[in-house]
Amino acid sequence: MAKSMYLLWGSGSPPCWRVMITLEEKKLQGYKHKLLSFEKGEHKSQEVMDINPRGQLPAFKDGDNIIHESIGACLYLENQYKSQGTKLIPDSPAEQALMYQRMMESNTLSEKIGTVLYYHMLVPEGERHDSAVKRNRENLTAELQLWEKYLENVAAGSYLAGAFSLADVVVYPSLAYAFQYGLSAERYPKIAKYYNLLKDRPSIKATCPQKWFQQEQRAEMLKGI
Amino acid sequence: MAKSMYLLWGSGSPPCWRVMITLEEKKLQGYKHKLLSFEKGEHKSQEVMDINPRGQLPAFKDGDNIIHESIGACLYLENQYKSQGTKLIPDSPAEQALMYQRMMESNTLSEKIGTVLYYHMLVPEGERHDSAVKRNRENLTAELQLWEKYLENVAAGSYLAGAFSLADVVVYPSLAYAFQYGLSAERYPKIAKYYNLLKDRPSIKATCPQKWFQQEQRAEMLKGI
Repeated sequence: MAKSMYLLWGSGSPPCWRVMITLEEKKLQGYKHKLLSFEKGEHKSQEVMDINPRGQLPAFKDGDNIIHESIGACLYLENQYKSQGTKLIPDSPAEQALMYQRMMESNTLSEKIGTVLYYHMLVPEGERHDSAVKRNRENLTAELQLWEKYLENVAAGSYLAGAFSLADVVVYPSLAYAFQYGLSAERYPKIAKYYNLLKDRPSIKATCPQKWFQQEQRAEMLKGI
Repeated sequence: MAKSMYLLWGSGSPPCWRVMITLEEKKLQGYKHKLLSFEKGEHKSQEVMDINPRGQLPAFKDGDNIIHESIGACLYLENQYKSQGTKLIPDSPAEQALMYQRMMESNTLSEKIGTVLYYHMLVPEGERHDSAVKRNRENLTAELQLWEKYLENVAAGSYLAGAFSLADVVVYPSLAYAFQYGLSAERYPKIAKYYNLLKDRPSIKATCPQKWFQQEQRAEMLKGI
């Protein structure tokens, strides 16, 4: 089944990582894939544009079925392979509600991280303001404080919505990304605990962006957040 | 069952409307609800903040289960009440893939509409630039052209992912919103056809924001997009 699948991805991209974790958890190893370079602009290549007209990664196909929205791909894979590998959507109404809630809240988290990290890419030089940089950082701090609270009781086996679920698949890469860019484990101890509890999970270890290990020095863009 | 549910909502908000359409489609009428006023800042009231710490609407509860992310609430309701009312997630892999894809792509559409409509609310006076306004409008035009293409073959019973599905529940309110703010039906004939094909669907008619009928003149903020 996995042979019908094709993933175009970029190393270090949280949305790409989500899909790769899901494929591991659902025992769908053996899918075709191609690593592209953001630096070389390969995410704007014709091959990507044919799958994802916005020229973003991941670009994912299962046979003729195209899903390039990462959360959409995760939901599709879980629903198509329900009884295979890890069950990623809990049955109990309470856990399921929490799972969907946290999974969808990840968009706000990613957006606030991206607004800080990519300010200079997103905003042309003549439109940049120190006041905006400051506000973006304050907004990210408030957002991370929410997640720190959500993870108040984190422990092995008790993650964002109880057992490991799509909420973790979707949120974990963004939080790992934040640490990669210098987020303080001292300031966010619960998020750091969550990060450490899951970093050796086989699906996560097998797919953890190699790029990050090649950086000699960690970026420090989120230091002080 | 619906009696255990409580929805805090604002009239004219596409995310609130999504949840209301889903409740109608799933035959969950009879839920408790309260209409709040954005103009009076009631979305920042303690009652909302207790459910949604970001102070946004909708704020939705089913018993003790809280889901304030609108797409999360729609997914939860469909999964909890699978065999009741309209089936909103198709079984066929091809339709399901397309449904998840379009549903999740709605975030990009909403964000680009919001960036144009709320520029003066989102960006403080000293940070505003005509070049940003122009770019935001161009980005929205490109985005709407994509949706115009997605709806190339729209017809009764053939919507965003075939039969009426969560893709329509989630996307329709944003497109209806755009017309409310002056989007040109001549420039986007397929989107306009889609809008008209669904506007009298019972779930949509029953929940269509009353606020819009009270406006004597339509806003024209999206004219020329």
